[in-house]
Amino acid sequence: MLGLDPDPARLWAEAASRAGGNGPAEQAASAVAAHCCDLIDAAGPACVAVKPQLACFERLGAPGRIALGAVVAHAKTAGLLVLADGKRGDIDVSAAAYCQSLVGTTATPFGDVGGLGADAFTANPYMGADTLGVLIEGAREAAAGVFVLVRTSNPGAADFEDLELAAGGTLWERVAESVDALGAAGELSDVGAVVGATAPQHVARMRELMPRTIFLLPGIGAQGGRVEDLAPAFAPGRAGGLVSASRSIVFASEERGGSAAEAAREQAEELRAAAWALG
Amino acid sequence: MLGLDPDPARLWAEAASRAGGNGPAEQAASAVAAHCCDLIDAAGPACVAVKPQLACFERLGAPGRIALGAVVAHAKTAGLLVLADGKRGDIDVSAAAYCQSLVGTTATPFGDVGGLGADAFTANPYMGADTLGVLIEGAREAAAGVFVLVRTSNPGAADFEDLELAAGGTLWERVAESVDALGAAGELSDVGAVVGATAPQHVARMRELMPRTIFLLPGIGAQGGRVEDLAPAFAPGRAGGLVSASRSIVFASEERGGSAAEAAREQAEELRAAAWALG
Repeated sequence: MLGLDPDPARLWAEAASRAGGNGPAEQAASAVAAHCCDLIDAAGPACVAVKPQLACFERLGAPGRIALGAVVAHAKTAGLLVLADGKRGDIDVSAAAYCQSLVGTTATPFGDVGGLGADAFTANPYMGADTLGVLIEGAREAAAGVFVLVRTSNPGAADFEDLELAAGGTLWERVAESVDALGAAGELSDVGAVVGATAPQHVARMRELMPRTIFLLPGIGAQGGRVEDLAPAFAPGRAGGLVSASRSIVFASEERGGSAAEAAREQAEELRAAAWALG
Repeated sequence: MLGLDPDPARLWAEAASRAGGNGPAEQAASAVAAHCCDLIDAAGPACVAVKPQLACFERLGAPGRIALGAVVAHAKTAGLLVLADGKRGDIDVSAAAYCQSLVGTTATPFGDVGGLGADAFTANPYMGADTLGVLIEGAREAAAGVFVLVRTSNPGAADFEDLELAAGGTLWERVAESVDALGAAGELSDVGAVVGATAPQHVARMRELMPRTIFLLPGIGAQGGRVEDLAPAFAPGRAGGLVSASRSIVFASEERGGSAAEAAREQAEELRAAAWALG
C-alpha cells in the first residue's frame, strides 16, 4: 500500500513545476495533486491501494480538499483501492458524519452531496465499541471497510495501548478482541486492524486474537519496520496483510539514485516481492 | 460553549432560504454557514466559545471547508473563541500536519498557507503521549490549546476508558495523569481535558487528578447530562469548566416555542446562569 503524505516543501520537482491556480493555497494544492498522481503512476503498479493521510491535504484548506478528490479519482482510475487515513472516532451523530464525509453521501434539501468516495478509512477505538459500531455500519452501507487502530507503530504506543489490565492481557489485546467481534462473518472480516510493523513480536499474538482480520501494517521503511518480520500477518493468505510504506518510496532516489519516479517504482516493487514471498 | 454540529437537513428555515452557489454542495454549505452564523448571533452572547464539529463541514467537501472558515471568522468577529472538534491523533509528522491545519500555517514554495485559525482543538490520546506531545507543541507555537479526550460522554466510554489496570486505577485515570503532566506550569494548564457531563460521579476524581486543567464538559442537554451535577469541575474558578451544548440550544424552540433564534438565546442564557452559579 502506497502512503500519500505529501509535504508541500518536499514535492517531486517536476510535479511542483506544474502548479497552477491563484495564491499559495491553490498553487501548493495543485502541486501536491500533481506530485501524488506522478507517485501513483510510478509506484501504483506494485500496490493494491493508496493511503492518503488526510491532514496533509486538510492543511491546504478548500484547495487541499479539491486536490485530495483529484488524487482519489486518479488512484481509482489506476485500479487502486483508496484508504482514507484520518484515524477518526466520535460519538453517534458525529461518527455518522465522518462516514458520510469519507465513504457515503449527505442528504441535503438541495440534493445529495457525495463524499470522498474512499474504499475504507482508519478509525480510533478509544471512545468505545459504540463509536466503532456507527463507523462500521456507515462503512457497510457504502460497501466500504474500516481499519481500527490496535497497536500502532510509534514509540508512545507503549504508554496506553500496552497497559496491562487487571482482568489480564493488555489494552491493545482487548481492542483486538473487540475488532474481531465487530467484523462480519466470512473468510476475511470487513473490519481491519492497524498493527504497527515496528513491533513484530506482537504480530503472532494479534493473528491469534484476530484470525480473519486484514492487518494494515504501517511503519515499514522510514519508521524502521522490516517486512521480513511480519510473516504471521499473512497466515490467512496474501490478502491478510497490507504493508504500507510512504517516505521510503517517495524519497527512494536519495538512497538508490536515479530519477524519483524510477527509484520509487523499484522500491515499491521490492517491497511487494518481499511481502508476497511471505504470503 | 456553543456546539456547532449543523445537519444540512435540519437547518433553521430562514438561514436555509439564504443558500447560494451552484449545485447541492455549494448550496448546502452556504446554508450551513448562514445557519451557524445566525446561531452564533442568537446564542453567542451567552457563550465564551463555539465548538464546530469538523465532520459536519467535511461531509460537504471543499465548499464545506469554505463554510467552516466563514463560521470561524464570524465567531471571532463576535469575540468568541473557536474550539475545532475533530478528536485528532496521529504519529509525529501527521500530528504536526493537523496542527498546521487547525491552528498553524504551512510553509510551501509558493508562500505560507494559513490554517483554520482555531484557538484550540480536541485530541485523542490512544496512540500515546508522544503523539499528544507533538499536538501540544504545535498548539503552543500558535498560542493555542489542546483538549484531550479523557472520559467521554457516550455509553461505550465504559468499553475501554473505564478498564481497570493491573497497576491500579482505570485507563481514563492514567490518561488524566498524563494530561496533568503534559500541561505547562501556571494557575491553569494549557492542556485541557474532555470530560463527559453524563458521568458526574467521576468529575470530583478528575479534578483531583487534574487540579489545574480546564474541563470541556460535553453531554449537557440532548445526551442527558445536567449542569447542576458538575460543581467539582469549577473548583479552580469559573474558567475551570467549559460546559458545551449543541442540540439542546439549536432545537430549543421545539420545547420552548417561539422563534428558533429567541429560544436558542433563552436556552443558552439559562445554561450560562446554571454554570456560573457553580463557579
